[in-house]
Amino acid sequence: MKPSPSSPIGVFDSGIGGLTVVKSVMERLPEEHILYFGDTARVPYGIKSMETVREYALQITDFLLRRNVKMIVIACNTVSAAAEQDVRLRAGEIPVIGVVEAGARVAAEAPHPHSVVGVIGTLATVGSGTYERSIKAIDSSIQVFSKACPLLVPLAEEGWVDNDVALLTLEHYLADFKTKALDALILGCTHYPLFKEGIAQVMGEGTRIIDSADAVADMVDARLRAAGLRNTEGTGGFECFVSDKPQRFQTLAERFLGKAVHRVEIVNVS
Amino acid sequence: MKPSPSSPIGVFDSGIGGLTVVKSVMERLPEEHILYFGDTARVPYGIKSMETVREYALQITDFLLRRNVKMIVIACNTVSAAAEQDVRLRAGEIPVIGVVEAGARVAAEAPHPHSVVGVIGTLATVGSGTYERSIKAIDSSIQVFSKACPLLVPLAEEGWVDNDVALLTLEHYLADFKTKALDALILGCTHYPLFKEGIAQVMGEGTRIIDSADAVADMVDARLRAAGLRNTEGTGGFECFVSDKPQRFQTLAERFLGKAVHRVEIVNVS
Repeated sequence: MKPSPSSPIGVFDSGIGGLTVVKSVMERLPEEHILYFGDTARVPYGIKSMETVREYALQITDFLLRRNVKMIVIACNTVSAAAEQDVRLRAGEIPVIGVVEAGARVAAEAPHPHSVVGVIGTLATVGSGTYERSIKAIDSSIQVFSKACPLLVPLAEEGWVDNDVALLTLEHYLADFKTKALDALILGCTHYPLFKEGIAQVMGEGTRIIDSADAVADMVDARLRAAGLRNTEGTGGFECFVSDKPQRFQTLAERFLGKAVHRVEIVNVS
Repeated sequence: MKPSPSSPIGVFDSGIGGLTVVKSVMERLPEEHILYFGDTARVPYGIKSMETVREYALQITDFLLRRNVKMIVIACNTVSAAAEQDVRLRAGEIPVIGVVEAGARVAAEAPHPHSVVGVIGTLATVGSGTYERSIKAIDSSIQVFSKACPLLVPLAEEGWVDNDVALLTLEHYLADFKTKALDALILGCTHYPLFKEGIAQVMGEGTRIIDSADAVADMVDARLRAAGLRNTEGTGGFECFVSDKPQRFQTLAERFLGKAVHRVEIVNVS
């Protein structure tokens, strides 16, 4: 069945982090129906090999295609960095948008071109070098420095985003960046916006903090319009699928989105 | 094929933490051949549901049985807490030893009976209540307090086991325990022995810190002898199988065991 404007937008992440992107898309495009998949049985992706992340990403892509989505949003930096091209190939004519491209564009393009950019992300995202390549593909004169911060996701899941442990951890991770006079710092993981205040505090006023969720929502809007698939008459809607722990996901998602989530179903995509 | 004394001992964990148990078994029983499986593609288990952990544990059990092991050692507290009975049923006549039983026995039995015992572990281990039930099954008069410490595994994998962040994290997690005058504290996760010094520092001298790895090695020895399967004439040996990132595992395993690891193979058990 060919997707129509009333078909859902498929959004996926390794777990709950991608809800930061869902929130931005909901605010920007309230008429659209969103179908979310969180791979809560296999989270976290950031410590896995590229091959494994690619295999999982294709399984989820197949699941979303079976649900007849009209667009796929990769709301996980690790997948976006490791497997965006694979997902695109598998999705065929269905447009695919990834958080890395969105973040790289904000960092590199006018009206705020930056000459020294920092990127923080998971081991897999930083190890892939994808942010650096993407930014330099847009403007090769930009200097890019990257740093893996593997403790931030567990800290966020523990709810320790602004206590003394979180701040001390940020100081360790960002110590090198403070000597480099960064113009901008990309939060290259969908969990990191939770630490935005602490990061701004450690980095000081000279560095712009880039959260790609809003940029993704802009891209979703533009790409749907270009494809004639934008739903401007719908009433919204949000369905969730997870691979493990649906109840816990529902609680976290409701807290996170600030609204009731009526349906969280468990599904095996492997 | 029926296992013989020269068959390997199968040891498994969600990742590398189980090597603390391997190290103890190697030191105590140097003649035995050990076959290790680390589920590095699906680590960590501690944040997953009991059902998922059980499913994974049975897949690994099947793999070890196909390799004709003579005993299965569950070197992962989360699996031992969630699925030990399932593994035992699947293994049939092959003896199964779990870290939880070993730790509970050390805490509860003479020559060091303890009346107030603390347990720290992953969310899944603590949520299962298995340590508490096991200790009380041995001696119902013992008071047991538990605390999930989900940040310790990521800290250990980042190599932050004795820096300021690690100590501050331990102080947060152990704050309640300090008011309870614990006689003993069980390290209910195979990663936690890496924090032994910090934990001892926070808890003070009155609390005995229990690492179950040595107790497991003692149980392996006794159970093999009882079954007539102890190999006293072998030359040792260590084979590793992982589900992802074999190179990284080899590097970590060699650093951890302090000896060369000749064979790390990738295998899909699901």
